[in-house]
Amino acid sequence: MSDPRNETTLDHVLHEAGPALPAREHIADIAARLNELDDIAAATLVARLPHEQVIELLDHPEFDQSVRILEALPTGEAALLVAGMSADRAADLFAEMDQRAGARLMAALDPETRAAIKRLLTFPPDTAGSLMTTEFVSVPATWTVGQTLEHIRQVERTRETVYAIYVLDPSSGKLIKAVSLRRLITGAPDDPILSVAAAPDPITTGPLADREDVARLFSKYDLLAVPVVDDAGIVIGIVTVDDMIDAIIEESTEDVQKFGGMEALDEPYMEIGFLNMLRKRAGWLCILFVGEMFTASAMQHFEDELERAIVLTLFIPLIMSSGGNSGSQATSLIIRALALHEIKLGDWWRVALRELPSGLALGSILGALGIIRISAWQMLGLHDYGEHWMLIAATIGASLLAIVTFGSMLGSMLPFVLRRLGFDPASASAPFVATFIDVTGLVIYFSVALAILSGTLL
Amino acid sequence: MSDPRNETTLDHVLHEAGPALPAREHIADIAARLNELDDIAAATLVARLPHEQVIELLDHPEFDQSVRILEALPTGEAALLVAGMSADRAADLFAEMDQRAGARLMAALDPETRAAIKRLLTFPPDTAGSLMTTEFVSVPATWTVGQTLEHIRQVERTRETVYAIYVLDPSSGKLIKAVSLRRLITGAPDDPILSVAAAPDPITTGPLADREDVARLFSKYDLLAVPVVDDAGIVIGIVTVDDMIDAIIEESTEDVQKFGGMEALDEPYMEIGFLNMLRKRAGWLCILFVGEMFTASAMQHFEDELERAIVLTLFIPLIMSSGGNSGSQATSLIIRALALHEIKLGDWWRVALRELPSGLALGSILGALGIIRISAWQMLGLHDYGEHWMLIAATIGASLLAIVTFGSMLGSMLPFVLRRLGFDPASASAPFVATFIDVTGLVIYFSVALAILSGTLL
Repeated sequence: MSDPRNETTLDHVLHEAGPALPAREHIADIAARLNELDDIAAATLVARLPHEQVIELLDHPEFDQSVRILEALPTGEAALLVAGMSADRAADLFAEMDQRAGARLMAALDPETRAAIKRLLTFPPDTAGSLMTTEFVSVPATWTVGQTLEHIRQVERTRETVYAIYVLDPSSGKLIKAVSLRRLITGAPDDPILSVAAAPDPITTGPLADREDVARLFSKYDLLAVPVVDDAGIVIGIVTVDDMIDAIIEESTEDVQKFGGMEALDEPYMEIGFLNMLRKRAGWLCILFVGEMFTASAMQHFEDELERAIVLTLFIPLIMSSGGNSGSQATSLIIRALALHEIKLGDWWRVALRELPSGLALGSILGALGIIRISAWQMLGLHDYGEHWMLIAATIGASLLAIVTFGSMLGSMLPFVLRRLGFDPASASAPFVATFIDVTGLVIYFSVALAILSGTLL
Repeated sequence: MSDPRNETTLDHVLHEAGPALPAREHIADIAARLNELDDIAAATLVARLPHEQVIELLDHPEFDQSVRILEALPTGEAALLVAGMSADRAADLFAEMDQRAGARLMAALDPETRAAIKRLLTFPPDTAGSLMTTEFVSVPATWTVGQTLEHIRQVERTRETVYAIYVLDPSSGKLIKAVSLRRLITGAPDDPILSVAAAPDPITTGPLADREDVARLFSKYDLLAVPVVDDAGIVIGIVTVDDMIDAIIEESTEDVQKFGGMEALDEPYMEIGFLNMLRKRAGWLCILFVGEMFTASAMQHFEDELERAIVLTLFIPLIMSSGGNSGSQATSLIIRALALHEIKLGDWWRVALRELPSGLALGSILGALGIIRISAWQMLGLHDYGEHWMLIAATIGASLLAIVTFGSMLGSMLPFVLRRLGFDPASASAPFVATFIDVTGLVIYFSVALAILSGTLL
C-alpha cells in the first residue's frame, strides 16, 4: 500500500474523495464499476458520495442505475439532484421513469428546471430537440470581451459547454453570431464581443432536424456544438459534440441491426430481456419467412419441369444465393451513400446507370465460373450431368448473368423506393433483398431453362 | 442586389473576401462548391484567394483538389502552404500524392515541418498515430495560469485545438495532468497551473491504438481531444474530436459495406472508378460463389432421394433462407456488440447460452408456420403434397427448428472465431454466414427427411 495509486477498490476511491476533494478517478470509470455491482451495494456506495459527484454520476449516460436511484430517493432530495443535472440528461431519465414516480418528481422541481425538462420532453426521439441541452452561454451583442469572459467564469460550472458563445441581438434576442472561447481569450477586455466573432453566420439547426442531419453538420463544419434555433431565430438549446458522438454510434448500431434483418434492439445485447429480443427478431423473421413462401409456390408452378430435369434443382441454391449476394452488396453501398448524403433521392437513375454495367460484369464473371464448374466436373468424371450437359452449363451461365444483374439493380433501387415511401432505407436489409431476389430469381432461372432446354430436357 | 446576402455566386464571395477580410462563407461551403467546378475553374478561383484561405481549404478534408493543387504549384509556394497546414492533414495529402512530386515537395519543407510529417507517415492507417496532429498546447507544470493563458493567446492560430492543455513534468517532459481551457479561465493569473487541472489522471492512448478503441475513449469520457503518448510517457500528438467524428463515420461505412459482403470501398460511391468498385465486389462474390458450390455437391449427394421425393425440393429455398436470415440477425448483433466492447472474446459461451434458447424459440415459431402452410394448402386443395403430406409437414417443421437454431448459433459464434483468428469480425458478412448455413442446412434438411420419411417416401 506504499503507492495509493495501486489501490483500486471502489471503496477506497470513494473514501478518499471527501466532499472537499475531487475524485482521483474519472467519473466514467466509477460509473462502469458501479454498474457491475448489485443494486444494494451500488446504492450504499452512491449514498456515501458527495452531492456533486452523485449529480455527475446521474449525468453520465453510461451509468445504468440513474433512474432507479431517483425513484428510490425521497422526492425532495431527488429534485435537488435533478436541478443540478444537465437538462437533456434529466429529460432522458424522465422518459425512462415509472410514470407515477416521474410525475411526483416533476411536481417537486423548481419551476425553471421543470419548464426546461418539460420542453425537452416534447421533442420526438432522435431529433436535435431531444438531443439538445438548454445550458449554454449567450450574451447580448452590446457586451465587451471582458464582460463576456467574466460572465463565463461565473456560469462555467453550470454550462454543458462554454466553448461556443452565442451572441444575441439585444432587442429581439435573435442569434447573430457565434464566438469560440479560443478566439474570445485573444481579444482585449474592452473590445466589443463582435470583434472576435467568426465571420460566417453561425451554423444552426431546427429542433425537429433528424440526428443524422445534425451529425453531418458536425462532421462538415468541425463543430463542438450546434445551436438549435426556433422559427423566430431564438436559440432554444445546443447539441454538444459528446452527445453527438453517442448519437452517431447509436445510429450505426441501429443501422447494422436493421441491415441484419431485425428491429433495432435499443439496448445492449447482454442486457436486453430475452422476450424483448425475441420479439425484435421474430417479427422480421416471420415476415421474411412468409415472403420466402413464394419460392415454394414458384417451385410448385415449375414442378413438372423439375420432375423432367431433376438436374436443374442441383443449382437452385447456388443461383439464388448469387443473386442475393450481389443484391446485398448493392444495397449496403446505397444505404450508406444515402445516409451520408453522398447521393440524393433524385440520383436513382445515375445509380441505376452504374449498377447495370456492374451487375452485367459481375454476372458474367460468376456465369463463367458456373460454366467452368459444370464442364470441369463433367469432363473430370466427378459427376454426370447427362448428354445435354453443355446446354445445362449454358442455362446456369445465362441464369447467373441475368440474376446477378437483376440482384444488383434491385438491391440498389430498393433503398430509394423505401426512402421515397417514407421508410428508413436501412430497412432494405440483406435478408429482405435476398428474399425478393430468391422469388424472382427462381422464375428467371426456370424461364431461362425453358428457353434453352425446350425440346431436349424440357 | 440590394441585399448582398442574396448574392451567392462563389465569385462574389471570393471577391468580397480580400486578404484583410475573413470570408463571410464557411470554408466547408466554399470547399463543397469548388468541388463541383472543373479543375481549371477551381484552380483559377483558388489562385485568387489569400494565402490564409488557401491553407484553410487545403486543411479541409472534404476539399477534393488539395493534392492536385500542391502538385501543380511551384515547389516553394507549395512548401509554404504545407508549413501553414495542420501536420496530420499534410501527412494525409503526402500519402495520396504522386511519389516524385511528394519527394520534391518534402525536400523543400522547413526541417521542423518535414520531421513532423515524416513521423506521422510512419504510423499505420486507422491508428491513433495516423489520426493525430502534432499541433497541441503543452506547458511545464511550473507555469502559472496567467503564463499559460498568455502562451495560448500567442499560439492559438497555429494549434488545432487549445481547449485541452497538457501539463508536462519540467525535467522529464512527461505528461502529468490535463487542463481544460474552460477551467483555466476560471483561475486567478498567479495561481499555479496545476491548481486548475482535472483531478483524475489524463486519459491517454498509444500511437498504435486502433481508431475504434480511441473512439470509445471519446465516447466514454466525453473528451474533446486525447493525447497520444509514447512508451516514455511523452505526448507526441493529439487526436481531436472533429477528426474522430470523421473516423467514426468512415469506420461505420466500412462495417456496413463489409457486412453487405464486399471489401470496403474507401471512396464515395459516386466517385470511385468503375474497375476499382468491380474489384472490391467481385472478390468476395467469387469466394462466396465457390463456397456456395458445395450446395450443388450436397444436392448431388442426395440426388437419389430428390428423384424419389421431388416434393422435397419445393421447400429448399424456404428452409435455407430461414437459416440464413436467423444467422444474419445473430451475426449483426454480435459484430456490433463486439465493436462496442459490450461483450469480449471470452464471453462467447455466455452468448451461446443466450442464442441457443433464442434459436430454439425462433425455430419453433418458423417451424409452426411451415407446418401450418403445408397443412393449409393441402386441406384447402391449393396443392397436393401426396398421401404422406403430414410426414412432409413434420419434416419441414423439424428441419426449420434445427436449421434456425443452427443458424443462430453459427451466426453468433462466427464473429468470435474471426476475431480469435485475427480477422475483423465485421467480415462475417450476412452473405458469408448465409453461405455457411446454406451448405450445412441442406445436409440437415436431407438428414431430417431421411429420418422421418424413410420407409414411406424415401
